[in-house]
Amino acid sequence: MTPLTGACIIGQSGGPTAVINASALGAIQTALNTSCITKVYGAAHGIRGVLDDVLYDMSKEDPAELELLKYTPSSALGSCRYKMKDPDVDDTDYKRILEIFKKYDVRYFFYNGGNDSMDTCNKISKFMMKSGYECRVMGIPKTIDNDLFGTDHCPGYGSAAKYIATTCMEVYQDAMVYDIPMITVIEIMGRHAGWLAAASALATNAGLGPDLIYLPEVAFDMDTFLRDVKAIHAKTGKVIVAVSEGIHDKDGRFISEASTSATDGFGHAQLGGLAARLADVLKKETGAKVRDIELSLSQRCAAHCASGTDIEEAYASGAAAVRHAAEGLTDKMVGFKRVMENGKYRCEIELLDLSQVANTEKKVPREWINAEGNGILQPFIDYATPLICGETGLQFENGLPRFAKLKKVQAK
Amino acid sequence: MTPLTGACIIGQSGGPTAVINASALGAIQTALNTSCITKVYGAAHGIRGVLDDVLYDMSKEDPAELELLKYTPSSALGSCRYKMKDPDVDDTDYKRILEIFKKYDVRYFFYNGGNDSMDTCNKISKFMMKSGYECRVMGIPKTIDNDLFGTDHCPGYGSAAKYIATTCMEVYQDAMVYDIPMITVIEIMGRHAGWLAAASALATNAGLGPDLIYLPEVAFDMDTFLRDVKAIHAKTGKVIVAVSEGIHDKDGRFISEASTSATDGFGHAQLGGLAARLADVLKKETGAKVRDIELSLSQRCAAHCASGTDIEEAYASGAAAVRHAAEGLTDKMVGFKRVMENGKYRCEIELLDLSQVANTEKKVPREWINAEGNGILQPFIDYATPLICGETGLQFENGLPRFAKLKKVQAK
Repeated sequence: MTPLTGACIIGQSGGPTAVINASALGAIQTALNTSCITKVYGAAHGIRGVLDDVLYDMSKEDPAELELLKYTPSSALGSCRYKMKDPDVDDTDYKRILEIFKKYDVRYFFYNGGNDSMDTCNKISKFMMKSGYECRVMGIPKTIDNDLFGTDHCPGYGSAAKYIATTCMEVYQDAMVYDIPMITVIEIMGRHAGWLAAASALATNAGLGPDLIYLPEVAFDMDTFLRDVKAIHAKTGKVIVAVSEGIHDKDGRFISEASTSATDGFGHAQLGGLAARLADVLKKETGAKVRDIELSLSQRCAAHCASGTDIEEAYASGAAAVRHAAEGLTDKMVGFKRVMENGKYRCEIELLDLSQVANTEKKVPREWINAEGNGILQPFIDYATPLICGETGLQFENGLPRFAKLKKVQAK
Repeated sequence: MTPLTGACIIGQSGGPTAVINASALGAIQTALNTSCITKVYGAAHGIRGVLDDVLYDMSKEDPAELELLKYTPSSALGSCRYKMKDPDVDDTDYKRILEIFKKYDVRYFFYNGGNDSMDTCNKISKFMMKSGYECRVMGIPKTIDNDLFGTDHCPGYGSAAKYIATTCMEVYQDAMVYDIPMITVIEIMGRHAGWLAAASALATNAGLGPDLIYLPEVAFDMDTFLRDVKAIHAKTGKVIVAVSEGIHDKDGRFISEASTSATDGFGHAQLGGLAARLADVLKKETGAKVRDIELSLSQRCAAHCASGTDIEEAYASGAAAVRHAAEGLTDKMVGFKRVMENGKYRCEIELLDLSQVANTEKKVPREWINAEGNGILQPFIDYATPLICGETGLQFENGLPRFAKLKKVQAK
């Protein structure tokens, strides 16, 4: 294979995670040290930065500052949720990308994101091929949702899972303090797949977690839910419930979107999330003290509670994308393969075809959820535990995280 | 001073904090090593455990497990919000306490809590004196609210402040990712004093924090608020607002409790907190994307993000209470005095009269808030920074916190 010489672009896309910058760092540092890569550009706000011709010259960054990206949450280069059109319908954007690639002699494109981003990668790669412009395109996975097809797990999930389980344990400690009956409802992210809500079972496994856990993988029934909660409430007085924001009824209608007219308990559709609504129903039905907590944004940006394993794997996935592209591969997404040796977890890099992973969602297997659909079984615990192990190497300054501050010198 | 020989009771009261168990540990370990203290009891659920005769024998705990209390959030012995009656009106509870003290030969009573708990301490001490029963009573301060009078700061505040500032920095990172205008409203605890919301200014000081901060110390005006937000929104597109849950209008009415009829913007009184309401108003007024986040319970139980300084000071306050009581003092609360030497912070123990601290609230000085009432000034940064420095020594097991599991052997 003759080496392909030229510049590279690294872009970040979709919702942030605690470790997406670790992946970017892996890609940037490897690219800076790869002889056939002549220039390393960061795209401002993902593919938008390419379309708008806003690229940062990563060689201009202070190496020590760049190193801090490993522990800096959210997308340091900026992100976007721009969905590219089908090039057969409208190829304006693709032509513009080709123009920019030619302008900067870009021969490598690394895109870090979830399902949509892999689709973007795939379409760009096909267009470049069709246009006779040699360019290697690699996807680097990222999503706290853990729903990317073909890979054992996704960078970003381990840290989100660690934050969720840790917070559930702390909320459990808090809930047990008073000698009075109390119900706590914890709302966890995850619109279509229940991987994040399932992570609360890691807290239960440690003896300090939810009694009941509901995922979108099983249709939610309000009567069964009330029966479940009331049974535990009658027995122990204390109930902790974890719900995925994506739970829906058997007809696929989100419980969080149930309208005023639909159910008596859901009287206030405009404000408050799912947990607030369920708490409202539970208050009326049990008369108990009910608290609702929405874990919210911290699930995707709590770098201070990131998983050491996740950080290292995220870095490795960025580095692998560059290494394999330099070696001649294209049209691949970096995936993870789990290897268990003598009960010890190891993660191997595996390359997947972009066309295979784009736009396919991976859900929590039904057999990892109990028959009643209100609890998580041991196979999930065994799956998730290695992903949350290890702590962050985050540095502190005056008691607070010291995140990377990039200069972002625009390329000419 | 002849040494007073007898048993001691340690109780925890009021809302939990990340470090109240560190104080308990300081008291328990010191008491176990003090020769005139014959037995060390932990009261189950504060003063309720004394009234109900449910005391745990702390000498029966495994010392290594006990040691983990230093990093375990919430009240391991259980808490209560039981308000004692005025003994001049009804002394039933006090007589019962005396009975229990006599039964177990209790000569030392250590109570760890906030304003109300110091009042409880004070009343019990006075009653014992009046009854001719020799017993030394010491208060150990605890409150994330930092509103106890007479002490420079309270154990529990530093950790809550560190969690709030850290989370604000991470939310800031998250908010800056997309290239679209967005307003974020962060709701922070603190019903009467703004110490917790002010902690968000530590994030701003680190370059990654709220643009506007509103405390209960300054009357909140909706029109001024909208003008403040709109001005920044027009300039930068991005606005982050931190609000104390206790903000109120000039007539003292909580903004979170504004009724349906009162203001047009507040259409939905039953669900959703203050941030959700303000977000609703801002959406209507600006048309921008608005997100609301309630930091919620984690502010008082996020042990994984506790301040090392706070943990050590909490421990020291528990230890000092026992040491000083054994030396003959009574009717005191352990307080902190700040000593600055060559710009270096040091915290000294100072004993305050219980009668002096009980039921008095300390607020954020008006001169630490800017003239507009929407920002925090340097004196607060200088005050709070030393309190959030240092990290927790929390141990991890399978990637999750390893909190103390007490045996709680009931005393006979």
